[in-house]
Amino acid sequence: MVKIALSDVYRNYITCLNQQDWLQIEQYVDNDVYYNDKQIGLSGYRKMLERDFYNIPDLHFNIQLLVSDGPYIASRLSFDCSPKEKFLDLNINGKRISFSENVFYEFQKGKIIKVWSIIDKAAIESQL
Amino acid sequence: MVKIALSDVYRNYITCLNQQDWLQIEQYVDNDVYYNDKQIGLSGYRKMLERDFYNIPDLHFNIQLLVSDGPYIASRLSFDCSPKEKFLDLNINGKRISFSENVFYEFQKGKIIKVWSIIDKAAIESQL
Repeated sequence: MVKIALSDVYRNYITCLNQQDWLQIEQYVDNDVYYNDKQIGLSGYRKMLERDFYNIPDLHFNIQLLVSDGPYIASRLSFDCSPKEKFLDLNINGKRISFSENVFYEFQKGKIIKVWSIIDKAAIESQL
Repeated sequence: MVKIALSDVYRNYITCLNQQDWLQIEQYVDNDVYYNDKQIGLSGYRKMLERDFYNIPDLHFNIQLLVSDGPYIASRLSFDCSPKEKFLDLNINGKRISFSENVFYEFQKGKIIKVWSIIDKAAIESQL
C-alpha cells in the first residue's frame, strides 16, 4: 500500500508543477530539499521551477516511465517545448525541441528531500 | 521475491560488465535489445560496451542508487575515469572526470530488453 501511495503522491506533484501551483508545492517538497547534491531548500526549488516556466512558457512535464520502491521514485520525464532563449547553455531561441529527463527522488515523511536529475543535453544538441 | 531477484540479476549484470565478460553478457541482455529506442540487438550492445572499454581503459560501473519495481529497474551509476580521447563529442584526452548516468531498464523473461540511458554531459563539460 505504501508503494502505491508514493506513486500517487508523485503523480500529484507532477500535476502541481504543470498547474504552476507554487503554493501547493510545499505539500510535496521538503523545506531542506537537495537538488543534485546541493541543498537549495524549498524556496530555491520553487525559484528554479518558476525560472524554468518563465524561460519555457510551454513547459509541460509528462511521465513516461515511473519506477517506485519506497522511499525512492525514479521517473523518466519527456518534454516537447520551445525555450525562449538559452537552455542548458545552448541557444534554442524558440525552436521546438524534444528531450527526456531521467530523475531520482528520495522521499522523507511523504515529501521530496533529495533529487538527482539528468537532462539529455546530447539529444537537444542533435536537434539544433 | 521476484523483486529481490531482479535487483540481484542487475547487480550480477554490472559485475559482468566490470569483468568485461562479453560471453556471459548474453545471460543478462536479450537478443533483440533496444537502446534509447533503437534496436541494436545483443551484438550491437556488446560492441558498444567493448568500444566504451577501449576508449576508457579504466571504466568501472558503480551503482549509486538502485530502484527496482519489476519488470523495471532504475539505476544511478557513477563513474570516475579517464577517457583516452573523445567522449560524448567532448575532448577529454586522458583527463580524469567524474559523472553520473541515470538509466532505466525493462526486463523480459529475466533479461534486459530495453534501456533508456542519460549521461550527465553538462557535469563533464563543467570539469573541462
